[in-house]
Amino acid sequence: MNVLTAEMLFVTKSVVEFVVTSARQKLLICRTTKLLSRSLSAKASGSNKIYASAGEAVKDIPDGAKILVGGFGLCGIPENLISALLETGVKDLTVISNNAGVDNFGLGLLLKEHRIRRIIASYVGENAEFERQYLAGELEVELTPQGTLAERIRAGGAGIPAFYTPTAYGTLVHEGGAPIKYSSSGKVEIASKKRASASFDGKNYILEEAITGDYAIVKAWKADPVGNLIFRKSARNFNPAMCKAARLAIAEVEELVPLGAIPPDEVHLPGIYVDRVIAGQNYEKRIEQLTLLKKSKSSSAASSSPAAAMRERIIRRAALEFKDGMYVNLGIGIPMLASNYIPEGMSVCMQSENGILGLGPFPATQEEVDPDLINAGKQTVTVQPGASFFSSDESFAMIRGGHVDLTILGAMQVSQYGDLANWMIPGKLVKGMGGAMDLVAAPGTKVVVTMEHTAKGGAHKILSQCTLPLTGKSCVDMIITEKGVFEVDAEDGLTLVEIAEDTTVPDIIQATGCNFEVSSDLKPMGRVKVNVEDE
Amino acid sequence: MNVLTAEMLFVTKSVVEFVVTSARQKLLICRTTKLLSRSLSAKASGSNKIYASAGEAVKDIPDGAKILVGGFGLCGIPENLISALLETGVKDLTVISNNAGVDNFGLGLLLKEHRIRRIIASYVGENAEFERQYLAGELEVELTPQGTLAERIRAGGAGIPAFYTPTAYGTLVHEGGAPIKYSSSGKVEIASKKRASASFDGKNYILEEAITGDYAIVKAWKADPVGNLIFRKSARNFNPAMCKAARLAIAEVEELVPLGAIPPDEVHLPGIYVDRVIAGQNYEKRIEQLTLLKKSKSSSAASSSPAAAMRERIIRRAALEFKDGMYVNLGIGIPMLASNYIPEGMSVCMQSENGILGLGPFPATQEEVDPDLINAGKQTVTVQPGASFFSSDESFAMIRGGHVDLTILGAMQVSQYGDLANWMIPGKLVKGMGGAMDLVAAPGTKVVVTMEHTAKGGAHKILSQCTLPLTGKSCVDMIITEKGVFEVDAEDGLTLVEIAEDTTVPDIIQATGCNFEVSSDLKPMGRVKVNVEDE
Repeated sequence: MNVLTAEMLFVTKSVVEFVVTSARQKLLICRTTKLLSRSLSAKASGSNKIYASAGEAVKDIPDGAKILVGGFGLCGIPENLISALLETGVKDLTVISNNAGVDNFGLGLLLKEHRIRRIIASYVGENAEFERQYLAGELEVELTPQGTLAERIRAGGAGIPAFYTPTAYGTLVHEGGAPIKYSSSGKVEIASKKRASASFDGKNYILEEAITGDYAIVKAWKADPVGNLIFRKSARNFNPAMCKAARLAIAEVEELVPLGAIPPDEVHLPGIYVDRVIAGQNYEKRIEQLTLLKKSKSSSAASSSPAAAMRERIIRRAALEFKDGMYVNLGIGIPMLASNYIPEGMSVCMQSENGILGLGPFPATQEEVDPDLINAGKQTVTVQPGASFFSSDESFAMIRGGHVDLTILGAMQVSQYGDLANWMIPGKLVKGMGGAMDLVAAPGTKVVVTMEHTAKGGAHKILSQCTLPLTGKSCVDMIITEKGVFEVDAEDGLTLVEIAEDTTVPDIIQATGCNFEVSSDLKPMGRVKVNVEDE
Repeated sequence: MNVLTAEMLFVTKSVVEFVVTSARQKLLICRTTKLLSRSLSAKASGSNKIYASAGEAVKDIPDGAKILVGGFGLCGIPENLISALLETGVKDLTVISNNAGVDNFGLGLLLKEHRIRRIIASYVGENAEFERQYLAGELEVELTPQGTLAERIRAGGAGIPAFYTPTAYGTLVHEGGAPIKYSSSGKVEIASKKRASASFDGKNYILEEAITGDYAIVKAWKADPVGNLIFRKSARNFNPAMCKAARLAIAEVEELVPLGAIPPDEVHLPGIYVDRVIAGQNYEKRIEQLTLLKKSKSSSAASSSPAAAMRERIIRRAALEFKDGMYVNLGIGIPMLASNYIPEGMSVCMQSENGILGLGPFPATQEEVDPDLINAGKQTVTVQPGASFFSSDESFAMIRGGHVDLTILGAMQVSQYGDLANWMIPGKLVKGMGGAMDLVAAPGTKVVVTMEHTAKGGAHKILSQCTLPLTGKSCVDMIITEKGVFEVDAEDGLTLVEIAEDTTVPDIIQATGCNFEVSSDLKPMGRVKVNVEDE
C-alpha cells in the first residue's frame, strides 16, 4: 500500500477509472471523478477531502473557536495540526481534550502561547505551565470524569442532548462549585454548575449534557480520499468521537491510501464524519512513560524492607480476588502489581480504559516499544493474543455498563459506608479525576481498594466520613490494607473479615477512624501462593 | 484461516503453546491453557467460550426470559440458536429484535409456536401470523422507532439508564396510548406510557429508558476462543448492541478461528461482551427481497403512462436536491429512484440505516447477490469503493446527529407546518415506524417529502393538521409533488415556490387542504437534466 502525498495523487488515477468503468448505472456514489481536477486548497467535497498541508486545513479556524482535540496523553495526538494552529496565531480557544499535553509538546505548545481560554479535560497532571495559568486565573478549566467526557462527546455526535450516568453521583461534579476560573487574586470567579439527578430502578444518576465543537483535529493511521479512517492500537482513544461531535473535522494521518484500499468492514470511522484530511509529516510520537519489563523477578516473600513487605502483603491478598475468566481494570501501583500473582492456569483479562482489552506485560526490549500502545498510566505496554483495541467512548461504555468484573484501585480515604476519595486534595493542585469516577460508579463491578491502613504520621484513612472530595459515593465493596480485609456494605458499614498475623483487633480499632464489625468468622489474612515463582 | 469446529479444536494447540512460551512473566492474560482440557459443555470461562452445539449454548434459558435477538430483516439472524430455542420448548419469552422474522423463518418460527409473549421491535410488517396474534390479544407488541430501539439497547449495554432524543417528539410514542396488548374482545388492554420531555437549546426531546436483557442470541461471521467477533457487511446491524445489553450473550458464527487470528485493530465486538460461542451449521441466509438491476434504462422522458410521467416528474425534481459531497438517505420508491438522476461529476454518498455508507446499485447478476448485503428495504444491493459498514446503533447515531445532509421520503399526509404522517393507519395493521421517525427528527438534516399531491379520489394529503398519527412534528422542509414544490416553515407554513407547467395556482389551491403563500418569485417546476441518459 503506497504512501500517498498530495504530490503523488496521480497514483489514484487507475482507481478512479476502475470506479467509473465498474459502475453499472447512473447511481454513481462516492465517485471520485473530480479527484484530480480540483485545487487541493479549495473546500474539499465528498469525493476528495485531501488537503495539501496542515496549514491549509486549519487556516479558517477563527479566534474563539471551540476545538475538539483527539489523543490520550501524548498518544494519538494531531501533532501537525497543533503545530499549524500555533502558526496561524489563532487564540481565545476553547479546547476539549482528555489531557492538556506536557510543557513542551502537544497542547502544551498552544497553552504556553496563551492561545487557550478554556479547557474541558479529565486529567491535566503532566503540565506545570497549566497549573500556573489555572491558579493565576489565566485559564478556565472544566474537569470532567473521563468516561463522562467521552460519553458527552459521543452524545454530541449522536444527537443526544443529555443522558443520565451513575458516574460522579454524590461528588463535587454532581454538587457543583468546583473552581473553573480563579480571579487574579485567587478567588473562585466561575464555579461548575450543579447537575440534576434522578433515580432509575432504585439507583442514583446525574444528568450530563452533550459536548459539541466547531472543529475537531485528530490523528489517525490511514485515510482514503473520502475520509474513511483507521486508527492504530491505543492511538484510537478519543479521536473518533471528536470527529463525530464537530461541525467540521480535520484528520491528519500517517498514510493516505487510494479509494477502495480500506475494506468496508474494517473502517473505524466512516468518512461522513471527516471533512478534511492531510498527510502528517515528521511524527515525533513522544513517549511519556517509557517502561520496560524488569529482568529481575518481582519482589517475593523475601522482600528487603518493611515497606516492601507491607506492599507485597497487600498485593498478594488483592491477587486472591482474581477468578478465572474475569475482566479486570487495575489502577497504577499496587493494583497493577497484583497482576504478577495471577495463578497459573487462571485466565484474567485486563482492561485499560484508554481502549485496550487483553493488556500484556511491559515490553521486554526497546525494540518492542510502540508509542501507539500505552496503558492508562501512559506507560508503554504490550498486548496478549486475543486482545482488542477500541475507542475511549466504547471503553467507558464497557466500564459504566458493568462489563468489567473487578476494579482494584488505591485510595486516600474510604468511609465506613464505602465512599471513596482518591482524586483531589484542595489547596494542592487538582490534576483531575481521570477515569476513576467511572470505574467505581458501575453497578455490578466489584470495587476493591488497596492502600496502607493509615497515612503518614498515623492519620486515619478509613473514616466515618471522608473529608476529601469524593471520587464515588457508597461504591467500595472491599478494603485491603496491610492489617486486614474489610467487607463494605453501603447500609451496614464495615466488617473486618480477615486479619494480618502481626496485628490484633484492638490495634486495628486504633488505626481506624470509624466503627466496624468484626466477623464471627474472622480469618487470617489470605495471600496468593507464590509457588508460581518457581516455574 | 481454518474453519474450527468443536471436533477440530486440536488445531489451536500450536497457538496455545505459542501463547505460553511467549509470555514473559506471570502476567498471563487471556491465556488458553485450559482450552483443550475442559469439557465443552461446561460453562465456558474467559479463556474458552466455545460450546459444542447451539443446543448446549441455550439449554439453560428459562421460560419467561428476556432475549435480545440480533439481525435486520432476515439478514444476520441467529438461525441456529433460534432453531435450538424451538427445540428446548422455552416459552413466555420477551423478545427484543428490530423485526419479527417472516411466517416460516427467523423469529416467525418461535412466534408460530406461541413462544413469544411480548416483542419490542421497530418494524414487523412481513409476518401475517404476527398480525393475527397481535389483534387477537395473544401477543404484546411495543413498537419503537428503530434508532430509539438501537440507542436504548446501546444505553443498556453502556450503563446509561436514560437519555433524551429528538426522535418521536410530538408523536404517539411521546404521548403514549399506543396499543401494546388487545383483549380477546379487541379492546386495548395495555397501552404504551407517555414519555417525559424536555428542551435543550430551544429544541424538544423526549426521555427514553435503556433496554437490557437476560440473554442475547446473535450471529457473527467469525469468532475466536475468547469471544472476539467480527461481522460481515450489513449483517452486523443490531448484533453487537444486543450482546452488550445482555447479561449473557451467545453468538453463533460461520467460522471459529484460533486465538490471535483476529487482529486486535479489526475486532468489531470485544470478547468481554460475549459469553458463549458456537459454530453455526447449514446457513440458509434466506433473502427477503431479491432485487437485481434491470437491464433496461430507467424510465426517461418518454414515459409510457400518465402515472409514470407523474412519478418521473417528482423524481427528477427531487434529484435537484442533490449537491456535490452530500450524504443522503433515500426512502424506498420515488426517493430511491431519484438516485438514478445524480448528475455526472457529482458525488453523492448514500446511507442505508441498517449500517451502510456508500450504497451502490442492485447487483447485476445472481452471482453478485450477497445475503449479507441488503438495504433498509431488505433488497439485495452492492456498495461503492470507499463504502463502510457499521452497526445499527452507530447508523442511527449518524442519522440522529445530523450527519446525513438530506433525507427524502414519502408521506401519507403533511401538515401546513411540516408535521409528517407516513407510518400508521389506525384500524389497518400497524407495521411499525422503522427508521422513519429518526430520519426526520435530526436537527440539521433537510427533510424532503416526495408524494402525489392528493390521495386516491382526490382526498387532500397536504392539510392544516394531519389526521393520521405523526411520524414527526414540524420536521418537513420541502414538499415535492407532481403539481409543484412547497417550502415549509414550522412557523410561517407553506410557500409554493415552483409550479408544474400543466397546472395553475387555483388548481393547486383546490388540491391542497390548507392555506399557503405563493412566492413572489414563483418559478416553473425544476427537473434535473436527463442528458446523462445519453452516455
